[in-house]
Amino acid sequence: MGRFVAFHCRACGERTPPEPAPRFACPGCGFEALDVELDLAAIRRTVTPALIGARRDPSLWRYRELLPVAMPRDDEGPLRQVGGTPLYSSPRASARIGGARVHIKDDGRLPTGSLKDRASAVVAMRARELGVDCILAASTGNAGVAIAAMAQAAGMRAIVLVPAAAPPAKIAQLMLFGARLLLVRGTYDDAFRLSREASRELGLYCRNTGYNPFTVEGKKTVSFEICEQLTQQAARADSDPSRAELSAPDAPPSKWLAPDRVYVSVGDGNIIVGVAKGFADLLALGFIERMPRLFGVQSAGSAAIANAWRQGSEHIERVSSNTLADSISADMPSDGLRALRAVRDSGGDYLVVSDSAILSAIVELARDATVFAEPAAATAYAGLLHHAQESAIPPSEDVVVLVTGTGLKDVAAATRAVAAAPTTIDPSMSALRQALS
Amino acid sequence: MGRFVAFHCRACGERTPPEPAPRFACPGCGFEALDVELDLAAIRRTVTPALIGARRDPSLWRYRELLPVAMPRDDEGPLRQVGGTPLYSSPRASARIGGARVHIKDDGRLPTGSLKDRASAVVAMRARELGVDCILAASTGNAGVAIAAMAQAAGMRAIVLVPAAAPPAKIAQLMLFGARLLLVRGTYDDAFRLSREASRELGLYCRNTGYNPFTVEGKKTVSFEICEQLTQQAARADSDPSRAELSAPDAPPSKWLAPDRVYVSVGDGNIIVGVAKGFADLLALGFIERMPRLFGVQSAGSAAIANAWRQGSEHIERVSSNTLADSISADMPSDGLRALRAVRDSGGDYLVVSDSAILSAIVELARDATVFAEPAAATAYAGLLHHAQESAIPPSEDVVVLVTGTGLKDVAAATRAVAAAPTTIDPSMSALRQALS
Repeated sequence: MGRFVAFHCRACGERTPPEPAPRFACPGCGFEALDVELDLAAIRRTVTPALIGARRDPSLWRYRELLPVAMPRDDEGPLRQVGGTPLYSSPRASARIGGARVHIKDDGRLPTGSLKDRASAVVAMRARELGVDCILAASTGNAGVAIAAMAQAAGMRAIVLVPAAAPPAKIAQLMLFGARLLLVRGTYDDAFRLSREASRELGLYCRNTGYNPFTVEGKKTVSFEICEQLTQQAARADSDPSRAELSAPDAPPSKWLAPDRVYVSVGDGNIIVGVAKGFADLLALGFIERMPRLFGVQSAGSAAIANAWRQGSEHIERVSSNTLADSISADMPSDGLRALRAVRDSGGDYLVVSDSAILSAIVELARDATVFAEPAAATAYAGLLHHAQESAIPPSEDVVVLVTGTGLKDVAAATRAVAAAPTTIDPSMSALRQALS
Repeated sequence: MGRFVAFHCRACGERTPPEPAPRFACPGCGFEALDVELDLAAIRRTVTPALIGARRDPSLWRYRELLPVAMPRDDEGPLRQVGGTPLYSSPRASARIGGARVHIKDDGRLPTGSLKDRASAVVAMRARELGVDCILAASTGNAGVAIAAMAQAAGMRAIVLVPAAAPPAKIAQLMLFGARLLLVRGTYDDAFRLSREASRELGLYCRNTGYNPFTVEGKKTVSFEICEQLTQQAARADSDPSRAELSAPDAPPSKWLAPDRVYVSVGDGNIIVGVAKGFADLLALGFIERMPRLFGVQSAGSAAIANAWRQGSEHIERVSSNTLADSISADMPSDGLRALRAVRDSGGDYLVVSDSAILSAIVELARDATVFAEPAAATAYAGLLHHAQESAIPPSEDVVVLVTGTGLKDVAAATRAVAAAPTTIDPSMSALRQALS
């Protein structure tokens, strides 16, 4: 695409032109989490919030001019229709944290049930531009499922490496979507290392997060949706519903609203980097007027980035991860540097929550917002609840909690989260009366 | 709502006014699957496809004038945002069946992962109008999950009876969404009987399918979406994509297209009744010009309706169900009469497929359309593939396959469907090379 103008290295500042070949490392310093730089000035001249707002396409391709890849064809299924997940406002969550308006962005409703679909759709389209027919990925599970699905929808093959202990639901999805699946005896970090080696030695295009520059370009679309949906909600709240029922819809707005805070679960750091890039793009384009504060939430059992944050350091020390939130379990986060800077630049903070707080948050989120999240996805909500107890959140604020994956991905964890066992009865009225009394 | 004018009994033809109290049986003949009758002439005077097409709201409430209940508030989460699932066109499925255009409607992407959310949203709004604060339901699992979620989002309680053998994912969802869950030692039919008894004796409002008249009113919205989306796809295929990128969107169409055929999995029969009602409403309103042919697909292990169909009878005989497609396992279908008539009136047919064909269809649907379906949902696709082998489907036809629930609801079945076991390797290049060779 004409608007993709350079790879940019945040470690040394070097710019590299977008040659038509895969690039994963900065030629200057070797840093391996490059940014994709778009010609935002050119985009600003041709695209407005009103132009996008008038589109009936709810997928992430409604933001096509802000993406560095071409759009898929209409008949490419989930690859074409990824995105457009709901943003629920939750009065019960607001009450629980003392009044601030809470909005739950449910990316568990994406085609394969996790936010990784956004990244994988954009990576698959980049792979097509590079003439690649097979994509390699290491994953805790969700990213692998997403690239298996998106590669398949795009007519490509995928080779996926996941830890052998990945939840059965994710393994079933990988098999069904036709990936060449390799279960690795070891951790996510072992699978990650091996996939990078394989990428180099076998010449395979690698999707890994914190390595492939294009994952962030897909993930940033969740921030676009948050701002556009927040603006639509505010417009509906201002209008007279009885009148709205029969009149023509209002013209799309010319500016979007940004939330005050966004809570994001953090494992290797790539999602929060994507979320930040989305808001930064909108700010640079003049679509929004300020940057939200980003709050990264890690599990205490896998808190390498939060550890560095507390020490005020950009040097991240390896940990030995041990958390039930498998999707954010990373010994050595692959996108740690950018994740630290994204939160710092936004005026946010890193928080740490325990596995038991994560389990409680699965239940609380289901009760407060009717959203069933996997452990890693409920981690962000655990962070918000923890934060609200520690430091008051002003009631005037709009707070977004990003739910990155559906709880159907890990039913065993949900079953643990619900302390009570269900009641079993004989099929008789007397048994039913007794159970209900 | 003013446009809901009567309950209509299809068994004896009697009309009953819509009194502000629950009604489940015809006062004339006692038949227990009443229709909700709308004043379609009045609706036709105020609503057009263009009016609906201009709405940015993708939920089923975009069809609010065609529904017999009021719309939820904006802050009622999934209750407000149910609907708007994708319709994927699948060139691979088309190739597999000899050329007809195949479209997959993926209702696995609804909030709780099944089509039952549509019914439960409308039932919850009806319950609110009746001043009810607790809804009772018997279910194989999905309908119970859906009413638990929608009742919770609406601020009501739910009591749900499911067979004790329901898949763990559905039980976890029921617990999380705060239902009072009773596992019944017995079949779905046992749970169904008990819930009706409890409804009468304890005065509880009952959501059961083939009993509560409002489930059909929610389920019919899937047909509205199919027609509107088919029309949008055809419009996009006709327009120049390079031009569309920067121009304003085209005006919404003044008519919608109907597909030629729709394949629907059938258990108790209520979904296919809802699907038929949706198309019938659109036809009566002049939004579409013809009725699609409906093909009901049953599992050979639970084929009571198809048995009656083959005998040309409206008398349905009880079977002893035994199928892995738990969501369509029903000994005595509660909505059989209407389900038989819906298919007959459309010029369609009933088909029967084996459990092994259902398992194969899970894999084929995942490969052809990148959609992961639970067994009951893949049954419709198994029916299409079976049908295409038996009798040629004209390549000029538009064929829709309704996917009623996500495969993440039943991972054990999916794991059975994939014959091969994944390869496990040590984290070394030599092990990886060996596995890939």
